[in-house]
Amino acid sequence: MSKALIFGHQNPDTDAIVAAKAFAYYQTQRGYDVEAVALGEPNMETNYVLNHFDEPAPRVVKTVSNEVDQVMLVDHNEAQQSVSDLDKVQVTFVVDHHRIANFHTDAPLYYRAEPVGCVSTILTEMFDEAKIEIPAKLAGLMLSAIISDTLLLQSPTTTDKDREAVRALAEIADVDVQSYGIAMLKAGTNLAAKSDKELIDGDAKSFDMNGHSVRIGQINTVDLDDVISRQAGLEKAMQDEIASEGYDLFITLATNVLNSDSELIVAGEPKDVVEKAFNTKLADNRASLPGVVSRKKQVVPPLTEAFNA
Amino acid sequence: MSKALIFGHQNPDTDAIVAAKAFAYYQTQRGYDVEAVALGEPNMETNYVLNHFDEPAPRVVKTVSNEVDQVMLVDHNEAQQSVSDLDKVQVTFVVDHHRIANFHTDAPLYYRAEPVGCVSTILTEMFDEAKIEIPAKLAGLMLSAIISDTLLLQSPTTTDKDREAVRALAEIADVDVQSYGIAMLKAGTNLAAKSDKELIDGDAKSFDMNGHSVRIGQINTVDLDDVISRQAGLEKAMQDEIASEGYDLFITLATNVLNSDSELIVAGEPKDVVEKAFNTKLADNRASLPGVVSRKKQVVPPLTEAFNA
Repeated sequence: MSKALIFGHQNPDTDAIVAAKAFAYYQTQRGYDVEAVALGEPNMETNYVLNHFDEPAPRVVKTVSNEVDQVMLVDHNEAQQSVSDLDKVQVTFVVDHHRIANFHTDAPLYYRAEPVGCVSTILTEMFDEAKIEIPAKLAGLMLSAIISDTLLLQSPTTTDKDREAVRALAEIADVDVQSYGIAMLKAGTNLAAKSDKELIDGDAKSFDMNGHSVRIGQINTVDLDDVISRQAGLEKAMQDEIASEGYDLFITLATNVLNSDSELIVAGEPKDVVEKAFNTKLADNRASLPGVVSRKKQVVPPLTEAFNA
Repeated sequence: MSKALIFGHQNPDTDAIVAAKAFAYYQTQRGYDVEAVALGEPNMETNYVLNHFDEPAPRVVKTVSNEVDQVMLVDHNEAQQSVSDLDKVQVTFVVDHHRIANFHTDAPLYYRAEPVGCVSTILTEMFDEAKIEIPAKLAGLMLSAIISDTLLLQSPTTTDKDREAVRALAEIADVDVQSYGIAMLKAGTNLAAKSDKELIDGDAKSFDMNGHSVRIGQINTVDLDDVISRQAGLEKAMQDEIASEGYDLFITLATNVLNSDSELIVAGEPKDVVEKAFNTKLADNRASLPGVVSRKKQVVPPLTEAFNA
């Protein structure tokens, strides 16, 4: 069996980095020759997590077919969110918690997806099923990924399985979830240190919606005004990317991670579809979305539906 | 939670019928409101199995959106192999052992695929993980599905997990695998009772290969001459379906289930791609493929690759 690379999506967040490391550990225990890599540098939150648990950042790769014939995906499946030469390698394993789209294989594979808040939750379950013990440091990393994806179990994507996993992992890692979680989320929201372009690129992902190329980014903050005060610059940066990358529509969701409200900033067209999707009116290319924190569960599905209507 | 229907692919084989029943039992135990249905009548082998274990055939449905909003798929995922109005309902669960293609969802879902010989093997594992006991009758049905899909563990799709599942299920069901398995496989191969059209339709599935509509059927037999002697009629029936259904290429694989050899009969075009895929020359639209028994593992991948070359 030749070596395989394991990685999460482009613009990696904490789960994309951690799930790759956790799945690599799991597969190694089961006899596979694998290496966890990443499709980009860790963000500020992930760096805080890696430092806290004294874990090195994964090697960053731009392509994979120059190294391996087989890859394993975590935390994504859509080709446009993956490595650029995905079509040149075989995908043998996927562990994910997103919709399935723009993904196909020539041969059967192992695919495990569950509609839960975080891939690290599914992996916690898989370790349990395979009776593989999770080392304390890895438990701390996986706990961090769940806190990140579920905003400390506040996001509507949170399920009982996420809560159970957090309990189990916190005990193994010996971490106080509440105090560590808030410190970690705050570490990821130091917006002043970032340029407008860095903010909109942050963890942005591309989606094909009924033939339209839609880019959706999310900025986590502890004060929405920190984002709104920079709206003009953010809009300019989005317009620049629309022009250079050929997107039709660019949406940036600014989310207050402490109280679970969001503001939507929109560039490109069709804006009327955005208004229809969220049953709102844009004023100055912006709209408030109270209670919206999840791109996956509260933004992508209504927008997809509005595009298909 | 509203009721959901569970079903396998069109032209159901034993695994498509049994896996729907087994997953319905599993989901019912976990509190879901579900019903196992089928997209066609059971074939002769499946009827033998259902009679043997005194189990009724599932209700046959042509559409589902008139009854339910949500469905769960077993043993398939490609839209053209599924119910005709799949696009009008939400797929919430998939348990499968095929490649993933022409499948997409708007929302996250539960998806469990493994590259093993039979969905009932994956379900055996899932019952074990969830600590749900398999009743003796259901174990007999699931055992039959694995025997059917793996040709009594002889197919190259067979994995250690299939062998383990057969051992466990045979013990629960108290069945002698070898004698029951041969009787069951023979019951499915009474070709004389079937018309040419019935033979080529048997368990045929459609595939999109680089823009070509490819239909691939498989006829199990205990004597290949029983199929070859009817080649002229089978070719005529395939040509008729190409004309009426708009397929480009129709391939029928006749497989000797006792010694694991196959003959390929081809209608439509491009035939040169078929020759390239199997590194053979067609004579009289036919070629021998010694050792080939698995459409999924030994026919679809090389053919897909040849179409993409």
